[in-house]
Amino acid sequence: MKRNVLMPNFAKRNGLVTIIAQDKNTREILMVAFTDEIGFLETMATGEAVYYSTSRGKRWRKGEESGNIQKVSQVLIDCDGDAVIYMVEQIGEGACHTSKRSCFYRSVLRPTTKMKGRLEIRVISVTRNIQV
Amino acid sequence: MKRNVLMPNFAKRNGLVTIIAQDKNTREILMVAFTDEIGFLETMATGEAVYYSTSRGKRWRKGEESGNIQKVSQVLIDCDGDAVIYMVEQIGEGACHTSKRSCFYRSVLRPTTKMKGRLEIRVISVTRNIQV
Repeated sequence: MKRNVLMPNFAKRNGLVTIIAQDKNTREILMVAFTDEIGFLETMATGEAVYYSTSRGKRWRKGEESGNIQKVSQVLIDCDGDAVIYMVEQIGEGACHTSKRSCFYRSVLRPTTKMKGRLEIRVISVTRNIQV
Repeated sequence: MKRNVLMPNFAKRNGLVTIIAQDKNTREILMVAFTDEIGFLETMATGEAVYYSTSRGKRWRKGEESGNIQKVSQVLIDCDGDAVIYMVEQIGEGACHTSKRSCFYRSVLRPTTKMKGRLEIRVISVTRNIQV
């Protein structure tokens, strides 16, 4: 079967696009990473998620060592083409190198009581110089 | 109420971290963007999502023009600290500048029939040189 593929805009961010792996059943966000054009095409061709590691400077197939591969059943692209969702079936114990199901296992807050509604932090001032 | 905040690693990617806005009720991914440290702290302080536009080179409060603000009720951080989920209540018609609920309203495939299971694309060869 021949299909047309709407390609992400790899030119926008030095050859990479942001990839979110989302559990196709629970809709839990499992991990966020990048991929390059070949990694994207490999994912499309094989149905298994391939990413590009910016720290190691190379492409990697999710689960190539752990066996915890991600079977991709749907691929969504955002309005400006620089971010993509892989809807996946996560094989094995999880997506995270810590063996947790999701890499997002921590809240940035460490509340003393259960959080309710809006955040209650107040930032009085921000004096550090941020260089972007 | 005083809380300790687990700060993202802004140093890793030139002062920015990836932000995913996820609908707190439906778990739909609404948009992906970046924020800087001040934007993150503003979000934490106000409970409304603030991002940093890399194309415009400045911070922006979601909905500052459209009114479609995002009320942030939970903030999750990933294992290596360079990506964050804002669990949000999306006010107004949607998160996307196209007025759609989510920026991810397109599949990369344009199937002629409903997709089933794994992708069926085959990539014969990739001859373009990719520079990353």
